[in-house]
Amino acid sequence: MDNLLEKIDFPKDLQKFSISELNELCDEIREKIIKTVSNNGGHLASNLGVVELTIALHKVFPSENDKIVWDVGHQSYTHKILTGRRDSISTIRTKGGLSGYPNRQESPYDAFNAGHSSTSISAALGIANAKNLTGEPGHVIAVIGDGALTGGLAYEGLNNAGRFKKNFIVILNDNKMSISRNVGSMARYLAHIRTKPGYFRVKGNVENALDRLPHIGQPIHHFLSKSKMALKQILYNNTIFDYMGFYYYGPFDGHDLEKLIDVLENAKNINHPVLLHVLTRKGKGYSFAEQNPGAFHGIASFDIKTGKSHSSGESFSSVFGNHLCTLAANDSRICAITAAMQMGTGLTGFARQYPERFFDTGIAEEHAVTFAGGLASGGMHPVFAVYSTFLQRGYDQIIHDAAIQRVKVTFAIDRAGVVGEDGETHQGIFDVAFLNTIPNITVFSPAYYDEMYRDLDQAIYHCDGISAVRYPRGKPFFKPYDFESKGMTFDSYGEKNAKIVIVTYGRLFSFACKAISELKNSGISVRIIKLNRIIPVDPDAIADAANAATIFFFEEGIQQGGVGEHFSFLLNKTGYKGKYFLRAITNFVPHATMLQSLSALGLDDKEMVNMILTECKH
Amino acid sequence: MDNLLEKIDFPKDLQKFSISELNELCDEIREKIIKTVSNNGGHLASNLGVVELTIALHKVFPSENDKIVWDVGHQSYTHKILTGRRDSISTIRTKGGLSGYPNRQESPYDAFNAGHSSTSISAALGIANAKNLTGEPGHVIAVIGDGALTGGLAYEGLNNAGRFKKNFIVILNDNKMSISRNVGSMARYLAHIRTKPGYFRVKGNVENALDRLPHIGQPIHHFLSKSKMALKQILYNNTIFDYMGFYYYGPFDGHDLEKLIDVLENAKNINHPVLLHVLTRKGKGYSFAEQNPGAFHGIASFDIKTGKSHSSGESFSSVFGNHLCTLAANDSRICAITAAMQMGTGLTGFARQYPERFFDTGIAEEHAVTFAGGLASGGMHPVFAVYSTFLQRGYDQIIHDAAIQRVKVTFAIDRAGVVGEDGETHQGIFDVAFLNTIPNITVFSPAYYDEMYRDLDQAIYHCDGISAVRYPRGKPFFKPYDFESKGMTFDSYGEKNAKIVIVTYGRLFSFACKAISELKNSGISVRIIKLNRIIPVDPDAIADAANAATIFFFEEGIQQGGVGEHFSFLLNKTGYKGKYFLRAITNFVPHATMLQSLSALGLDDKEMVNMILTECKH
Repeated sequence: MDNLLEKIDFPKDLQKFSISELNELCDEIREKIIKTVSNNGGHLASNLGVVELTIALHKVFPSENDKIVWDVGHQSYTHKILTGRRDSISTIRTKGGLSGYPNRQESPYDAFNAGHSSTSISAALGIANAKNLTGEPGHVIAVIGDGALTGGLAYEGLNNAGRFKKNFIVILNDNKMSISRNVGSMARYLAHIRTKPGYFRVKGNVENALDRLPHIGQPIHHFLSKSKMALKQILYNNTIFDYMGFYYYGPFDGHDLEKLIDVLENAKNINHPVLLHVLTRKGKGYSFAEQNPGAFHGIASFDIKTGKSHSSGESFSSVFGNHLCTLAANDSRICAITAAMQMGTGLTGFARQYPERFFDTGIAEEHAVTFAGGLASGGMHPVFAVYSTFLQRGYDQIIHDAAIQRVKVTFAIDRAGVVGEDGETHQGIFDVAFLNTIPNITVFSPAYYDEMYRDLDQAIYHCDGISAVRYPRGKPFFKPYDFESKGMTFDSYGEKNAKIVIVTYGRLFSFACKAISELKNSGISVRIIKLNRIIPVDPDAIADAANAATIFFFEEGIQQGGVGEHFSFLLNKTGYKGKYFLRAITNFVPHATMLQSLSALGLDDKEMVNMILTECKH
Repeated sequence: MDNLLEKIDFPKDLQKFSISELNELCDEIREKIIKTVSNNGGHLASNLGVVELTIALHKVFPSENDKIVWDVGHQSYTHKILTGRRDSISTIRTKGGLSGYPNRQESPYDAFNAGHSSTSISAALGIANAKNLTGEPGHVIAVIGDGALTGGLAYEGLNNAGRFKKNFIVILNDNKMSISRNVGSMARYLAHIRTKPGYFRVKGNVENALDRLPHIGQPIHHFLSKSKMALKQILYNNTIFDYMGFYYYGPFDGHDLEKLIDVLENAKNINHPVLLHVLTRKGKGYSFAEQNPGAFHGIASFDIKTGKSHSSGESFSSVFGNHLCTLAANDSRICAITAAMQMGTGLTGFARQYPERFFDTGIAEEHAVTFAGGLASGGMHPVFAVYSTFLQRGYDQIIHDAAIQRVKVTFAIDRAGVVGEDGETHQGIFDVAFLNTIPNITVFSPAYYDEMYRDLDQAIYHCDGISAVRYPRGKPFFKPYDFESKGMTFDSYGEKNAKIVIVTYGRLFSFACKAISELKNSGISVRIIKLNRIIPVDPDAIADAANAATIFFFEEGIQQGGVGEHFSFLLNKTGYKGKYFLRAITNFVPHATMLQSLSALGLDDKEMVNMILTECKH
């Protein structure tokens, strides 16, 4: 099967193959990726789109010293396969296996860890400047999608890179999408370039012709640049990228290997920032993914023959989206905002039903928050649905453009807590701690769907200022038959007079329930205080907990600055003299399944039981 | 003196004046601003630059329903004077007086609070969409400087605003500067537009001529827009802003009142996003400020006749800058990064001595952090000098592009703690709490210059991963003659066997010293534990504090998630059964002098004494 691929351990091995062999290699790699993702889940469409581009890059830049910075990093599977990880690719996204994203700790070929969008140009520029200062050889190439170009950080990168005086290559991997359809003026502008008949082709052809003359590309460029005003007005229609200080070339067919190699060979010798506009097709080579790239962006394992995902059905995201539609039907002030995650956050229905109140900002979390502040100051009630890990990007805006405005904005924080296979760049473990620093904020953490309804209603209708409801990826965990949340701020569950109390919030409650029933079998009675409103903590919850002799706080979030430490502080103010044990997250969390991660973090029912048994022996 | 100004209470009063009277009014306003700032300190150059622009705006958009969103907001003095605050402008930036920035709580004419850069387009777009949904009348205008255009958030705003289907005006107030000289490709591009002889003038003239035909501007625009491809190629040279979906007009002389009013009247009737490029001169009308606008950006009180500031001399910023130069002389890996704050962060000397290792990113904190991550991954040791309040913008990048990369990056955090007159948008009260959430970070908080040297050395040479040194605005407070910091992580000072212990860090130590000497006079002995390394806290400091019967922790930072709560948690783990009192900041802090703020927050020596006396009576 992998006739050619078997011969490739490292990029240098690409040199021995002809173009037609390399095209065959593309097929082998596509097959390998489809098989891997169908087993492990992962990013399919984005990876299938860049097979030729990646091979071309590694053929032209085969050295460890050549640093390819993959933006977001969800398109790096071919890169991993070609850089010493062909055989371990089957372990991708599994515990102890390869990361689904570039990872410096995994390989010297991974120049910069990624996961969040729009970082590549800035990081690559840093690497290029370091090379410039240290004298280390090699080229630096940032590969960024058109979707990532909606993020302001990418623009900041372009704005700074445009004045770099050396070779610096940005590849705009234009597939007309972020995860969903790409939005905004830049997207429209790219469409304009793509379809424009005359000027760009003229420009591309002329410059390519010039560049092809060996060793003359550079001085001619210099000449062009010197007399550019006159010449450019006639020959070229400047692109935004030229205006930003780059030499723009393109657009090129991103599946034409020969052309790509040629273009990269030329770009390599230009002593100036270069932007290569490459058109690729998401999902290329797998019909289901080509037809529906959004569904095959980040997916669970699936059946190759039918393209059917092995996971489906309702989730916190879909339930949230439906409930927001219900609220919006009765309240014309409610708006929904997403940062390029319409599908992932469950807002597809809302977008269809209330298009005038639905805003997709592109991958632009800061704008999304500030825009929400503006909407709210104008009398609307915006709900920004966003993954926990991405809301980190709006921290200053939550403070400065929402909280300080004294307006009502609600954050629906999806993928809160441990997210599993995407690993450390995607864990939703910081939101509680960073939101906790913001004065006058209210945060809820439901464990089940019915609690999410209630908490969302509370957040929107019974909170002054900034509010948030955070819920995990996927479905709720097990719910005991005899439990229904009745407290708005907290619930008590289990043995009434137990001297041992577990305090927790969110889905860990399910594990805590399992743990106490197991402990009961060992003759140990434990009560659970389940926090629903986690910021601010209800003083009654503190007073209630203070009756215990021993308290175990379990928190699916970073410990430093989290609710567990704060709870301890509040307890002490009441004069609590009992014992207090806190288990929370203290470091970055690598990829594994959610359950594996929670177990490794000591946060599942088994580990809760172990901890309680151990500590109560003393 | 204020013959005309006296007659203006609100914008509608501008209607009765002729252009020549309005020009006179500009002089009166300039005089008032110069006088006010010379007394109170504040922003001079930026305010003097927009006097005509502000009058024109309020003449054309006089209603409370017209929302002018001032980016950064340091140019809003004329706006305040014209909107009901003429007589109270003398109180600006003083305790209980007007804020130095737009403030929704202060006036219905202040559309959106500001202080941080690049937020105006996003906020204005939110307001415009709210108007669109609620049917509230009025126009929305964002006024943004060319400096603020280096921030990615501004680009995200443009990218989203470009597809708005209604009137929406962005005024690019181009003075060729941020605080220092503006940087980056966009700055170069604007310079290019400014000086370009042909196309833009043609464009401006043609479009203006068209627009001037009353009530015809709009349909003609529509027509132009419809057949735009053909026409624009011939008539226009598209600007970046046209590409981003705006109609670009300009550049216009920002001191030509008649022209500005005319242009705004036209822009008002265009049913499409419009960008007006207005050229202004920072410091206009006050020669010292015109000659040296950087020095007259944010300044202390000064002498009008000589232009000499009443404050000067060394500060934490200058001492930091000098020390970094010393380190850089012996270590070629050290780089310095600023986000448009070369002067404010004390890096002017470094920029001169080590230009190849100095990077001014423009107002682009996120890029600055990610770029630092790139530099570090390439073997350099970047030091990003940044004001505490602005580092909030890089929170995600610190996690994702620095900490997760496992590289060494140092943050020199200036203006940490209470900053005084700039007020709530500028307080450096969150850095400790948000840095605290990041795994494996080390943070130092020196109280005096010599400690800053030591801590910076430690941060750069003795820390793995991300490190930070945070220091306050201006000079250190009083230092007791018999104190010299000897502990790397903490010091103990005062009565050795005292049962009462104050724990604190940073400059509050000075107050604590005063407090304990005062308490000594009352017969109460108190010891101080002064933390130098605040994250992580040295366990020995905890063990030491645990000997006390009563602990008072004073923290010049937000309480939630800060060191004080964490210290309490760590204490409890040791089995500490004494009392623990924490005083820190729990809400946004309004403008006042630093000392007034610290007193109001209960954090000066007097309030420390009061608290200790009160609590120890019980």
